[in-house]
Amino acid sequence: MEHDALGEVLVEVGSLKRMQRTGWAMRGVPYVESIADHIMGTTFVALALADVLNADGQGLDVEQVLLMALVHDLAEVRLTDLPASAARLIPAEVKSRAEAEAMAALLAPLPGASRLLGLWQAFEDRDSREGRLVRDADKLEMMVQCLRYELAGSRGLDEFWEAIDALVWHYPLSGELYARLRAMRPG
Amino acid sequence: MEHDALGEVLVEVGSLKRMQRTGWAMRGVPYVESIADHIMGTTFVALALADVLNADGQGLDVEQVLLMALVHDLAEVRLTDLPASAARLIPAEVKSRAEAEAMAALLAPLPGASRLLGLWQAFEDRDSREGRLVRDADKLEMMVQCLRYELAGSRGLDEFWEAIDALVWHYPLSGELYARLRAMRPG
Amino acid sequence: MEHDALGEVLVEVGSLKRMQRTGWAMRGVPYVESIADHIMGTTFVALALADVLNADGQGLDVEQVLLMALVHDLAEVRLTDLPASAARLIPAEVKSRAEAEAMAALLAPLPGASRLLGLWQAFEDRDSREGRLVRDADKLEMMVQCLRYELAGSRGLDEFWEAIDALVWHYPLSGELYARLRAMRPG
Amino acid sequence: MEHDALGEVLVEVGSLKRMQRTGWAMRGVPYVESIADHIMGTTFVALALADVLNADGQGLDVEQVLLMALVHDLAEVRLTDLPASAARLIPAEVKSRAEAEAMAALLAPLPGASRLLGLWQAFEDRDSREGRLVRDADKLEMMVQCLRYELAGSRGLDEFWEAIDALVWHYPLSGELYARLRAMRPG
Amino acid sequence: MEHDALGEVLVEVGSLKRMQRTGWAMRGVPYVESIADHIMGTTFVALALADVLNADGQGLDVEQVLLMALVHDLAEVRLTDLPASAARLIPAEVKSRAEAEAMAALLAPLPGASRLLGLWQAFEDRDSREGRLVRDADKLEMMVQCLRYELAGSRGLDEFWEAIDALVWHYPLSGELYARLRAMRPG
Amino acid sequence: MEHDALGEVLVEVGSLKRMQRTGWAMRGVPYVESIADHIMGTTFVALALADVLNADGQGLDVEQVLLMALVHDLAEVRLTDLPASAARLIPAEVKSRAEAEAMAALLAPLPGASRLLGLWQAFEDRDSREGRLVRDADKLEMMVQCLRYELAGSRGLDEFWEAIDALVWHYPLSGELYARLRAMRPG
Repeated sequence: MEHDALGEVLVEVGSLKRMQRTGWAMRGVPYVESIADHIMGTTFVALALADVLNADGQGLDVEQVLLMALVHDLAEVRLTDLPASAARLIPAEVKSRAEAEAMAALLAPLPGASRLLGLWQAFEDRDSREGRLVRDADKLEMMVQCLRYELAGSRGLDEFWEAIDALVWHYPLSGELYARLRAMRPG
Repeated sequence: MEHDALGEVLVEVGSLKRMQRTGWAMRGVPYVESIADHIMGTTFVALALADVLNADGQGLDVEQVLLMALVHDLAEVRLTDLPASAARLIPAEVKSRAEAEAMAALLAPLPGASRLLGLWQAFEDRDSREGRLVRDADKLEMMVQCLRYELAGSRGLDEFWEAIDALVWHYPLSGELYARLRAMRPG
Repeated sequence: MEHDALGEVLVEVGSLKRMQRTGWAMRGVPYVESIADHIMGTTFVALALADVLNADGQGLDVEQVLLMALVHDLAEVRLTDLPASAARLIPAEVKSRAEAEAMAALLAPLPGASRLLGLWQAFEDRDSREGRLVRDADKLEMMVQCLRYELAGSRGLDEFWEAIDALVWHYPLSGELYARLRAMRPG
Repeated sequence: MEHDALGEVLVEVGSLKRMQRTGWAMRGVPYVESIADHIMGTTFVALALADVLNADGQGLDVEQVLLMALVHDLAEVRLTDLPASAARLIPAEVKSRAEAEAMAALLAPLPGASRLLGLWQAFEDRDSREGRLVRDADKLEMMVQCLRYELAGSRGLDEFWEAIDALVWHYPLSGELYARLRAMRPG
Repeated sequence: MEHDALGEVLVEVGSLKRMQRTGWAMRGVPYVESIADHIMGTTFVALALADVLNADGQGLDVEQVLLMALVHDLAEVRLTDLPASAARLIPAEVKSRAEAEAMAALLAPLPGASRLLGLWQAFEDRDSREGRLVRDADKLEMMVQCLRYELAGSRGLDEFWEAIDALVWHYPLSGELYARLRAMRPG
Repeated sequence: MEHDALGEVLVEVGSLKRMQRTGWAMRGVPYVESIADHIMGTTFVALALADVLNADGQGLDVEQVLLMALVHDLAEVRLTDLPASAARLIPAEVKSRAEAEAMAALLAPLPGASRLLGLWQAFEDRDSREGRLVRDADKLEMMVQCLRYELAGSRGLDEFWEAIDALVWHYPLSGELYARLRAMRPG
């Protein structure tokens, strides 16, 4: 049948609902979000950012923003979510090559695969205004989740805030929203 | 601060990661997907459908498709996921009005709120080619998950297949992919 | 067979063990109690209240109290637990009618269905001393659970205490026990 | 304060929501019901049985039935749920004495403690028509849950059915409902 | 077949991965470690202690230490983990006899069963330097887990620290490591 | 303080209780064992194998066997459990080097670190009789867990059996036990 490969990709991508964002698990949070949860959140944050910026006349391509956010962690369905402690042990270029290979295989059944791979690469390389926006959204979403854990009682997540404090945001709006999240931390 | 309301919406939307797709819980599946999981899956299925159809010259607006998929169940962050047994007890127009009210409140902090509400309404009413496509994607994604449960050992989900067998798909491609999923059911 | 319908109701009611008390899930508590958990707790709290009050000569009908507590949330097996944010979106009379319809259908296989429906209605309407007692027990039990979450480390549940602070208890004993729970909150 | 001890019992009893029915955990079922879940279920099954039998003129004391069902496993909040493999290793009279001691301590703050203890003892000793009914309800409820696991895909639970096949029911109605559950097992 | 009994023991021991350390469940911690988790942790702590002590010339038998740690809670696969509240209700000698009986049955298919039982008995009776070391490791590991819960946000675990404060450690090193853990408690 | 680094390692190793064996999660099993669960299981399987072989006069060093089993997956506390799909994307020597680096850092606070690293390397390289035995134990334990999932109702795990069918066992005993597990698979 024609769409067999496509059907199989849809089923495989469903694994992201059961796969954990490992950094949280290692810190002992009560309920570890799935990679799919994070992708949904990132896509929504990216939409919110693009919407505010475009109302300000920045002319971001919203379709590109949404596509990048949707596929930004797709490779993890084969590679899993490697936490910071693992990233320190595996050379960045090895990880990049592994992700690119996984992405190419996963997207192959889609006719628009090469465009999607190009968008994903632009996100990886922060090589377009849209890619940089999704990078900001990815980090902001992590901190939305971090804040949600803390508001519900989690402790021991200071290192996430410290790491993000040191981050240079690509858009001032991202920094403003981050400051807002930080202000919502429980005392 | 300017973006306080936006920050609060991002945090509230994060609740979707903890909220269950209730129909699965009632059937006793081992691990109930979150509403956020389902939204991520639906957005990916919608992208796949649109990509194949556009390669065939259908000229669907991908940005609209992604936006509709992303927000299609957003109201559930306040309303929760009402299963079929609840939908039979609450008049459809009451549910529709409640969803519209929730959507309007949630999206209010976004400058493009009215456009997003319009797109969501088109999805609800199946009132555009993109809206109909996302309706198909929503159902297909439910069946991807259903199949995943069955492949992993779940039983007792026949009524889902029977209900969808009776569905008229808006696009033949959706029906073909559904047939493909059905063929993957364990013996 | 004669008791087929009864057997099916017993199996359906078992779903309450897998269905979440949604308000807790939305706040991100680590482990969301089931509706069945809450019903068991409410029945025990109601017994405790009735026992103390009857020792004081109040002559409450304990059988009625236990029956009301046991069935007070039974309709949720079809309707699910609608949190406060949903209740604000669905008119109270729509919800009431839906519950009554679900209750009637669920209890139909029991010969004493009409008596049980009557008792449930008295609870809903706070229309008897026993009904008012079970209403107090329902709220007290929610706060027992809220306190248990806080004692174990949960935060962000202040709004529950604030809402109940504003409640008028039907029995002074309920208010005294609530004060006791409040005094046990961690610093 | 006067009701301090009562408040503490309510909080302690809440632990039953987090404590597992251990026999299921040992068999690897996906989602282990809580002891509170089982108590709620047993109380509902007991009500259903009593209701049918009383419609038939048997004149069972429903208040007693409900009280017995509600407290029948209360001691487990201190003793935990000892599965069959543990019961084979601990002499029955040691377990009985431990349960009686736990029950007495737990119920002490209730003015009607001695009546409740007497009812519980009648359940333990199957020493009244109501006590025997609740014994049937306790076993029936276990099989409702067993059936629910199997309907949802669990395997490896045959030993439960075999053990209950060998049971002599105190009421023919219980046997009829059990036969009904057995007939619902998946092929 | 010759190794049938051995195969069955391996499968049965696997149950320890699904069985909870009940004391944590009763306190409402978010995620209850399994008995297998605790055994792994205890074996590692025991190795660490023995390694430091032997570097200091104490000449502990590391093989014995590891064997004792590995089997120290094996009986719980049949008896479950009885928390302190249960241990207060069941006479210590009854529990000891039940454990010894379970151990003997579980280890029977191993040719070296009697040596393992002897080691386990030495652990139970603190009757060798290695047995006393594993006793320290068992308690230290419990406090590592307790600390991990607190670092992640759990509250209400003071009674564990208080109980262990009163413990006499068999090795000063254990006390030093405990002091170190205590110093890491969140403010 | 002297043992600060040791205390920190004990706490870090505790993360293994919360980290998933990712291969199972991706297949949708209901309850994913922890890495610590697997280490405990492997150590017990390794003991059983060594015990039977030594009764047959093979003279394996049990202390070495236990140490290797205990530390064989320790590096995963930083690297996480990389499933087969990830191992296909990351060159084996990169993974090996990352593991060796993690192991060296984790074990540094132990005086016997270099001996333990040497044992772990022998396991990695199958470079001693004990190392080969633990390799067999690691695979056997995975199949004990796989069988446990299937006995409890999981499906879709055939690829695990097929992969292990193709494995050459280092010891005939391992193959015999594997055949025994295979014979226990549900129909």
